[in-house]
Amino acid sequence: MEEVAVPLEAPCGVHPTPGGSVKLSAIGEFGLIDRIRKGGLAVAPGVLVGIGDDAAILEPSPGNLLVATTDLLIEGVHFRTEFASPYAIGRKAMAVNVSDIAAMGGIPRHALIALAIPQEVPVEFIEDFYRGLREEGARDQIAIVGGDTSSSPSGLALFLALLGEVERDRYLTRGGAKAGDNIWVTGRLGASAAWLAALEAGFRVAGEGSGVITGPGIERLAAEEREALVEAIQAHLFPTPRVKEGRALTMAGVVSAMIDISDGLASDLGHILTESGVSAKVYRERLPLHPATAVVGRLLGQDPWVYAIQGGEDYELLFTSPNGPWTVEGTLAAEGLTLPILIGEVVEGKEGGFLIDSFGGSKPLTGGYQHFQIGCQMPEAGC
Amino acid sequence: MEEVAVPLEAPCGVHPTPGGSVKLSAIGEFGLIDRIRKGGLAVAPGVLVGIGDDAAILEPSPGNLLVATTDLLIEGVHFRTEFASPYAIGRKAMAVNVSDIAAMGGIPRHALIALAIPQEVPVEFIEDFYRGLREEGARDQIAIVGGDTSSSPSGLALFLALLGEVERDRYLTRGGAKAGDNIWVTGRLGASAAWLAALEAGFRVAGEGSGVITGPGIERLAAEEREALVEAIQAHLFPTPRVKEGRALTMAGVVSAMIDISDGLASDLGHILTESGVSAKVYRERLPLHPATAVVGRLLGQDPWVYAIQGGEDYELLFTSPNGPWTVEGTLAAEGLTLPILIGEVVEGKEGGFLIDSFGGSKPLTGGYQHFQIGCQMPEAGC
Repeated sequence: MEEVAVPLEAPCGVHPTPGGSVKLSAIGEFGLIDRIRKGGLAVAPGVLVGIGDDAAILEPSPGNLLVATTDLLIEGVHFRTEFASPYAIGRKAMAVNVSDIAAMGGIPRHALIALAIPQEVPVEFIEDFYRGLREEGARDQIAIVGGDTSSSPSGLALFLALLGEVERDRYLTRGGAKAGDNIWVTGRLGASAAWLAALEAGFRVAGEGSGVITGPGIERLAAEEREALVEAIQAHLFPTPRVKEGRALTMAGVVSAMIDISDGLASDLGHILTESGVSAKVYRERLPLHPATAVVGRLLGQDPWVYAIQGGEDYELLFTSPNGPWTVEGTLAAEGLTLPILIGEVVEGKEGGFLIDSFGGSKPLTGGYQHFQIGCQMPEAGC
Repeated sequence: MEEVAVPLEAPCGVHPTPGGSVKLSAIGEFGLIDRIRKGGLAVAPGVLVGIGDDAAILEPSPGNLLVATTDLLIEGVHFRTEFASPYAIGRKAMAVNVSDIAAMGGIPRHALIALAIPQEVPVEFIEDFYRGLREEGARDQIAIVGGDTSSSPSGLALFLALLGEVERDRYLTRGGAKAGDNIWVTGRLGASAAWLAALEAGFRVAGEGSGVITGPGIERLAAEEREALVEAIQAHLFPTPRVKEGRALTMAGVVSAMIDISDGLASDLGHILTESGVSAKVYRERLPLHPATAVVGRLLGQDPWVYAIQGGEDYELLFTSPNGPWTVEGTLAAEGLTLPILIGEVVEGKEGGFLIDSFGGSKPLTGGYQHFQIGCQMPEAGC
């Protein structure tokens, strides 16, 4: 089995627990909080009281509305420590919350972090996790302003609440789509789910600095296929929330409804349709499949469309617009951002979304990740 | 073993899983979210977008600062389903966060709730938990505006983030105590920890509507001792956060530093002293021990002072004031609130707190609940 070197942004798949690891029991809860405080931002805009009091005191921007979201990351459901380093888990924990703020058209500002930590987890794990949180937040100048820590009798549980702001009358919900609107997505789909499927099938990326990919059949891949796989690993571990795109679209006033793709295109478009009381046609040939979906599909003998339609964790923005393509594309082009992709249209009705194939055939656009549900389409995602 | 009837505010110690219990797997994540949404407030002040979008959109009061806190409740650490009903767990989850906002002098307004739920937990459990959250929040008109749900491979994990507001230049931190200030507490101490110790020793409260207490020696208690025990159960299950007291003290400008007692008097006073760079003398004979501490201490052969000094979960406000007793007491009396109790004074130094006994003897005021720490004073609290 050949190994393929990957120029990863950060080492993953390895636990950074060097020789002199410090146990939580040696420093206690308050020692841990001290360490977390020391790693924090010296100057954080709008923070009057940060970590270390009963609550944070924050200064909202005059006239703006508050945007508030929260996401859970549970070990064994949302992440596995054998699949991602604590640094990568921290990066992603922040990114998925930032993505929710972006989906409302908001600016992320302040984060609260709560952690339930098993006794045996070394302090370095927590510090690397916080480093990931901070580095991911730094792009948007997000300050960690508070939180809570607890021991955990079983696995790790991570909770983020992220606060942001948005101009009055500018925020976007899932509820504004109208028949005749176009449906857009900000980037390619399925890469994250494809790499997760590969991980589940025994593929791994390992090594410090520049990692290596191992897995059955990896040696038969062409150079560009390996490139695609490397991009998929990045998409899975370090998704880039579309804050700039969300802001540009919001301020231009060209969007009628918006959501970020976390549960999968089918499921998340379904939320827009339900909240807006409309249906949709999505054209299969217009769907921007990430090339890694085909690579992994072939390696595993799976349907690559499942990754793109039902996979989830793309963290692209999915939005509807009454404006023409030139206006929508121009809005992002003017900011030097990647052009969005037109994938379909909103239509009258309550039947939900339909996927239209090249021959005009139509079938319901369903599936996607849903917790607690039996019989979901992606058991490898942990249903 | 005799049973003692307890006029409980809500039935506890019993799992409300009647015959027709609904499994989470039958309704899925989105079905659960629908049920939670339907139970929400119809009209919530300041909520432009609530549960059911990527993030909530909230309207801050003009000119006010934002107060933000988070607390996690982990099964087996913070609660046990055999010790408290889901309704009581919900009530307490809200109360402990409200208490943190109260400790800053703030007004609680909006809550985000995240839950990691094992597959086998019935839907009724979650609905009862939310009912507890809502009923506890109703006193302060708190709206649940968002959250997240996830399956959990092990125990229940509950996370709350609570947002509130406070007038500019009115918020109180742990850091303002000065030598010469008096130290006050808003109520009696140790009841919650005493009942927890009793639970750990096999005492139980059970029954629908009016519960009954069982446990070794319970039949030898006098009527007023049983009354005290009933109060302790209430204090443990349904603590009342001191929002009104916090607001009155804040607006009167009579407080230099404030905290709520969650980890225990010794530990929480320690936080004020550390953040303020001062020491303190606390007079043992002034400490307002709840009578249940003596009852449980005698039943279990334990030192009742440990419950009051190191026990925690009292959710009383502990504060320092440069003003005289008449002013501080008058501030709360004017609002029809219970008078606070003067327990000591802030002094120069960095040595921390000292407990002064009736003979003038002095010993360090230490201990209290700290996660991860080995060798804590209350192993029955789950260290």
